Amino acid sequence: MIEDKTLPLEEIDPAYCDRGIYFGDGVYEVMRSYNGKLFAFEEHIQRFAQSLVGIEINGIDLDDIRSRVRCAFEQAKIPNAKIYWHVTRGSGPRDHCGGNDLTPNFFLTVMELNDAAADEEKKKGIAVSTHPDWRWKRCDIKSLNLLANVLARRDAQKKGCSEAILFDEHGLVTEGSASAFFVIFGKTLQTAPLTANILPSITRAFVLDAAKSVGLELLEKSFTPHDAAAASEMFIAVTTKDIVPVVKFDESKIGDGTPGPYVKKLIEEFRNKFKISKS
Amino acid sequence: MIEDKTLPLEEIDPAYCDRGIYFGDGVYEVMRSYNGKLFAFEEHIQRFAQSLVGIEINGIDLDDIRSRVRCAFEQAKIPNAKIYWHVTRGSGPRDHCGGNDLTPNFFLTVMELNDAAADEEKKKGIAVSTHPDWRWKRCDIKSLNLLANVLARRDAQKKGCSEAILFDEHGLVTEGSASAFFVIFGKTLQTAPLTANILPSITRAFVLDAAKSVGLELLEKSFTPHDAAAASEMFIAVTTKDIVPVVKFDESKIGDGTPGPYVKKLIEEFRNKFKISKS
Repeated sequence: MIEDKTLPLEEIDPAYCDRGIYFGDGVYEVMRSYNGKLFAFEEHIQRFAQSLVGIEINGIDLDDIRSRVRCAFEQAKIPNAKIYWHVTRGSGPRDHCGGNDLTPNFFLTVMELNDAAADEEKKKGIAVSTHPDWRWKRCDIKSLNLLANVLARRDAQKKGCSEAILFDEHGLVTEGSASAFFVIFGKTLQTAPLTANILPSITRAFVLDAAKSVGLELLEKSFTPHDAAAASEMFIAVTTKDIVPVVKFDESKIGDGTPGPYVKKLIEEFRNKFKISKS
Repeated sequence: MIEDKTLPLEEIDPAYCDRGIYFGDGVYEVMRSYNGKLFAFEEHIQRFAQSLVGIEINGIDLDDIRSRVRCAFEQAKIPNAKIYWHVTRGSGPRDHCGGNDLTPNFFLTVMELNDAAADEEKKKGIAVSTHPDWRWKRCDIKSLNLLANVLARRDAQKKGCSEAILFDEHGLVTEGSASAFFVIFGKTLQTAPLTANILPSITRAFVLDAAKSVGLELLEKSFTPHDAAAASEMFIAVTTKDIVPVVKFDESKIGDGTPGPYVKKLIEEFRNKFKISKS
């Protein structure tokens, strides 16, 4: 039955019986392009491969994925695009195990990014709020189980914030609901270490590389929201927007309430390194 | 792009852009019928209502759900049926928050249950294996985020087991991947207490009620897999099969390796109370 309409199971579109919807039994990636060029293409493909391994979806030809992503991106003709795709274990009767004979489903969208809005956020900085980290314990896998992220983000939105920063049951910050999270204390850039509960963010890897170039010491060590509130600077990192300064953390103003010097340098460094023209 | 086929976003079936698949942003129920009669109908409706509240899907008319469930069940004409349904926040562009203007999607299936196979399991008992509980921290909500359950069940299947029993980061048993879990030590029936990380199982509630009638003391207290391995009897409870004895727990034989006297009494009690004829 779909809404009010009843029909035999054989007649419904397999999309309705996708294990992606029954169980979130799939993995995804989000990639972007700058001025017609895909950014960190191979890094995203490799992370996607890791996610497939993580949930044991076998037999996916990565070259197929590569060519589908390129083909869809070329056909869409959107210079600054967000490319989303997922692969699920397949469609079939609802059964937790999922037989190994299922055929995985592939789905991809190409959408235009609103870089003007992102640039505005970069200039002014954003406000974030904290939320308990309710996510599952394998956040190193980029899976379709994102309801905890959705609930945290909805909570942030109610508080007038752009992102939710998650803290675990030990009271330690993990990451944002859809971003990596960084704090700066003096000359030290701090972020949580990569564990089974942190996504290996591709922009995070860039930030860690770039930190030294801008004169920052690096500390991969967990911290509490209380610690974070005392930071001199703060930012999130996310593929679609690269680096976005945070100027308000719950009720605390960060620095003087405008993006600080190190964050600006990191944004500049990112743009220079990848030859991204300012919009 | 769906598999190899590209098409404009406007032309794809909204099922592909369901927040259920993007985020697992929905909640579900599984109900069953015995001999043409729906079992614990209102209990499932009420739990479903709680799940909707838990993830803030508003505006669902429970009477609509009730009549859709009844209507689909009547049309299917399956006396011993499993009825599955879910409601998601709706279809739309992929955005974590999900606007409050979205129209929720409803989907339901009615399938025939294989009660003969379940009765065989009841007679012989099943083997279970343990797996870390990787689920999110709001398992009191019956959400579509079930990948941790899927991975645990797949692991159990590889070990020749019918169910995975989950233990959390403190080494304490929570529940099965799709069932409540009980152990009996002497005259004491023990199960984990209901917390934010345990689903309020409807069959669990029956078992707790029935325990006294069969002469069991009740203890709602967490235990470890090591504790469990020493139990005199053990069983799982699940809507589709009610009570199923466990006779092997990882490498440990439980009791004499066949269903014990209390488990048999509980199964009998369940059948008598709900006037279920033996198949």
